[in-house]
Amino acid sequence: MATTLDNTSTAEKHPFSDRVLIRSIVSRPDGGAGLAGQRVRVGGWVKTGREQGKGSFAFLEVNDGSCPANFQVIVDAAVADLGQLVPTGTSVSVEGLLKNPPEGTKQKIELRVEKVIDVGTVDPAKYPIPKTKLTLEFLRDRIHFRPRTNTIAAVARIRNALAYATHTFFQEHGFLYIHTPIITTSDCEGAGEMFQVTTLISEAEKIEKELIKNPPSSEADVEAAKAVVKEKGEAVAKLKSDKANKEAITASVSELTKAKENLSKLEERSKLKPGIPQKDGKIDYAQDFFARQAFLTVSGQLQVETYACAVSNVYTFGPTFRAEHSHTSRHLAEFWMVEPEIAFADIKDDMNCAEAYVKFMCQWLLDKCFDDMEFMAKNYDKSCIDRLRMVSSTPFERITYTEAVEILEAAVKEGKKFENKVEWGIDLASEHERFLTEVKFQKPVIVYNYPKGIKAFYMRVNDDSKTVAAMDVLVPKVGELIGGSQREERYDIIKSRIEEMRLPLEPYEWYLDLRRFGTVKHSGFGLGFERMILFATGIENIRDVIPFPRYPGRADL
Amino acid sequence: MATTLDNTSTAEKHPFSDRVLIRSIVSRPDGGAGLAGQRVRVGGWVKTGREQGKGSFAFLEVNDGSCPANFQVIVDAAVADLGQLVPTGTSVSVEGLLKNPPEGTKQKIELRVEKVIDVGTVDPAKYPIPKTKLTLEFLRDRIHFRPRTNTIAAVARIRNALAYATHTFFQEHGFLYIHTPIITTSDCEGAGEMFQVTTLISEAEKIEKELIKNPPSSEADVEAAKAVVKEKGEAVAKLKSDKANKEAITASVSELTKAKENLSKLEERSKLKPGIPQKDGKIDYAQDFFARQAFLTVSGQLQVETYACAVSNVYTFGPTFRAEHSHTSRHLAEFWMVEPEIAFADIKDDMNCAEAYVKFMCQWLLDKCFDDMEFMAKNYDKSCIDRLRMVSSTPFERITYTEAVEILEAAVKEGKKFENKVEWGIDLASEHERFLTEVKFQKPVIVYNYPKGIKAFYMRVNDDSKTVAAMDVLVPKVGELIGGSQREERYDIIKSRIEEMRLPLEPYEWYLDLRRFGTVKHSGFGLGFERMILFATGIENIRDVIPFPRYPGRADL
Repeated sequence: MATTLDNTSTAEKHPFSDRVLIRSIVSRPDGGAGLAGQRVRVGGWVKTGREQGKGSFAFLEVNDGSCPANFQVIVDAAVADLGQLVPTGTSVSVEGLLKNPPEGTKQKIELRVEKVIDVGTVDPAKYPIPKTKLTLEFLRDRIHFRPRTNTIAAVARIRNALAYATHTFFQEHGFLYIHTPIITTSDCEGAGEMFQVTTLISEAEKIEKELIKNPPSSEADVEAAKAVVKEKGEAVAKLKSDKANKEAITASVSELTKAKENLSKLEERSKLKPGIPQKDGKIDYAQDFFARQAFLTVSGQLQVETYACAVSNVYTFGPTFRAEHSHTSRHLAEFWMVEPEIAFADIKDDMNCAEAYVKFMCQWLLDKCFDDMEFMAKNYDKSCIDRLRMVSSTPFERITYTEAVEILEAAVKEGKKFENKVEWGIDLASEHERFLTEVKFQKPVIVYNYPKGIKAFYMRVNDDSKTVAAMDVLVPKVGELIGGSQREERYDIIKSRIEEMRLPLEPYEWYLDLRRFGTVKHSGFGLGFERMILFATGIENIRDVIPFPRYPGRADL
Repeated sequence: MATTLDNTSTAEKHPFSDRVLIRSIVSRPDGGAGLAGQRVRVGGWVKTGREQGKGSFAFLEVNDGSCPANFQVIVDAAVADLGQLVPTGTSVSVEGLLKNPPEGTKQKIELRVEKVIDVGTVDPAKYPIPKTKLTLEFLRDRIHFRPRTNTIAAVARIRNALAYATHTFFQEHGFLYIHTPIITTSDCEGAGEMFQVTTLISEAEKIEKELIKNPPSSEADVEAAKAVVKEKGEAVAKLKSDKANKEAITASVSELTKAKENLSKLEERSKLKPGIPQKDGKIDYAQDFFARQAFLTVSGQLQVETYACAVSNVYTFGPTFRAEHSHTSRHLAEFWMVEPEIAFADIKDDMNCAEAYVKFMCQWLLDKCFDDMEFMAKNYDKSCIDRLRMVSSTPFERITYTEAVEILEAAVKEGKKFENKVEWGIDLASEHERFLTEVKFQKPVIVYNYPKGIKAFYMRVNDDSKTVAAMDVLVPKVGELIGGSQREERYDIIKSRIEEMRLPLEPYEWYLDLRRFGTVKHSGFGLGFERMILFATGIENIRDVIPFPRYPGRADL
């Protein structure tokens, strides 16, 4: 993706197969014209196909996912069964000569097929995503086919580009990528609804099946086995006191051992109970896989801080989870987050990093995905390219929370209506955030120094004792894109903040340890990766910018 | 990380704070000598500190995680309380002048501190990782402090480098990074033990708490409420038949509505039952978050195939999970996998890709992490650098499974003892794999065309009907590093393979759809990311090469 195509004379061969990528033909500055005369093999799926000249040849528009543009392929009836080739969705692998089409046609190069290598046919009557315009909602029910559509393929390329831009940005700035855990026994904010990860249910089901096949031993069985042990024990004792010969004693001891083994097996089985194991009226998590209750992470921040407080510049980029029953177009149960954490950095450094990162991603899309962005501008959001240009080149406005509230109050006085009341101390609602970035400043805005009452315990208390060094980056189209803060590095203060918020101290002892020993000023933030894609593409529903969306009632595949 | 440092005249400023990275001083070809005279600020943690000259000054060896080398800092007693600075683990942010030390000393540059900006103190009597040599096992119990050790920090840099090398390799070759789901309702191979993801237990606990506070309505309550509804209904009917005035009717209807609401609330509450919801004697998964049973993924392969069969070159790189009770040094419950999938590619293309990828990673480490590799060679595995050099430059041996068995049988004849029997049809054991790569060929070996009986249903059946187009990449030190295959693209054959293996068809209908419509030759493989780190570093236990290891009984943080 990273290379810029030029007009050199040969098409770029696919590194691990004998075809060339369609992108390497049609995305050249000359549209591929300079490649005429070359023999190539291409593979892809037919977007549209039609027979022409009374069935003597067929035009196929073929796409292999390497770029949004299709590639025109012409097949003679003498070469293949054209009826098999033309249905939308057919896969083809074909070889032939590149030719310049007649002047006046849109494309600059096309392929005259000499040989059809492979065909994967489609019965158009049964194909689940026929050619007609399909809604994104309809496609959500055909999750395994939707990457074959122009939109979902373009989203995949944009998502891929933003992911690599993310890694490249942090790597170039000396950050280490840290894989924070997905399964966690810490709850980041003592808040969010979490998914539980367990083997207790499957273990219980296994035991239930086993008990049906093989009922547990009864008390009577156990008593009988105990009697046998007693009897065999007495026999051994008798032989010993009788000074019987060695073999007789050995044989008798061996019988006793067997009886004991049988008893312990029966006792073991008599304890098997259907259902999830309980202890003192509660679920006995000591018997769960990790010997304690475990959850899916809601954020890697607290864990990645252990690395920031050791190797200074780090970031995570991974899936996070919320078990909230939100059915909105902005929430997913599984979504990806980017969370950098910087040691020896304060809230200002944090804002600088966030601004540089967002700008870098916008410029990256303009540089590497312009054709996909044009597709988005044409089909989803006319202003998306202008938005990327503006964000990549305009310094972000920075205002305190107090200034933000004053601006909003002034707007209310001038007649602006908000659904949510504006006053110092409120959490800014989406409508407030969008007013600031879209109406008031018309560019990205960073709001910082929020009231401590509405923010998490780990954010650093400012000298005014009323606010914390938190910051949110607001952008047009989606509102809040990033939330971050300087972390409270002072042991006494963070401890009393945890107590103030009535959170238990014990689960945070390891986190407090980072402040007890060699504590360091540090800051970080989180960017919702899908939000960034919504911002870039103008797509409305978050379910359409992640390959396999998970939300209440749905987890296809 | 990617840039090579040269001897230009200024130290590289940290992009988002006012310090410079220690790496930008000490990792220059001149060891930093050329920077003498510059004023810089550095931050980091004291590795060792000692007071000298009867307490008139202190030497601090400071490390900020940007490279394995420490940086020597000298502080005069006039500048700061030296006793506070010298304990191992203390964080310091200091400013001063870079100076060339006296000739004959190891380091080429040191810092004369003029100002101590910040100190995070350590009480050495309480510090959980004191200076003495600590075992990796000991450190596993102090997971939040272990990144402060030289070994775990070096592993973090190597892991980071391999992750970015992975993305760079696939991006440069035109692959799209696809985020396959973590929560899944498909089981990749119908085999592996999976973790269940659920909200049923927490919901049940919530209901139980609620029922204790507020007992469920009794049948009598419900009957009484029904009677009220009946009575109010009759009242409305009477008023209507009496043609009473509008207000009276409205008031009466409103009372009826209230009575109905009360009834439905009571009925709702009377249904609340403690425990996990059941239906027909089984757990009622319709009431779980996703309205069905859900698990943590064991592999993204099947899902990523939906993208390969649409945009042709893709890869996943994410966490995967196995709920196996393995306590070995080679298994984790949560580990990371890299899984590329290539359309229009056969098993040979697949092997080419795997070989190129492994070589690329080895060369990357030699280029970008040589200092960390030297640390590993010195402390863990003398041969690790030679191994990277050999793998990056030697063509991999390729042999069929049948040839591999013949080689092993010949070795047995010559007196080689294996614990596991060798004969055609067995799954190669680790001892066999390591014999092939370490003893017989002494280089990486790709074994391909395995008996179909020991491989997964989705692997392509060869023309001999006995083997499938599977391949494993074996490397010295760890044995199997990669497993892959050409996928069965023929609908009839894959369907009968699923049936042959007595797997249910229904859960695979979507996967079969990829073969029903526009099917395409495709291949892919999986690389266990932690295995690659073990291979590179020579570290023995997989729990030490992932930041937060999860295994039976343990999931710290």
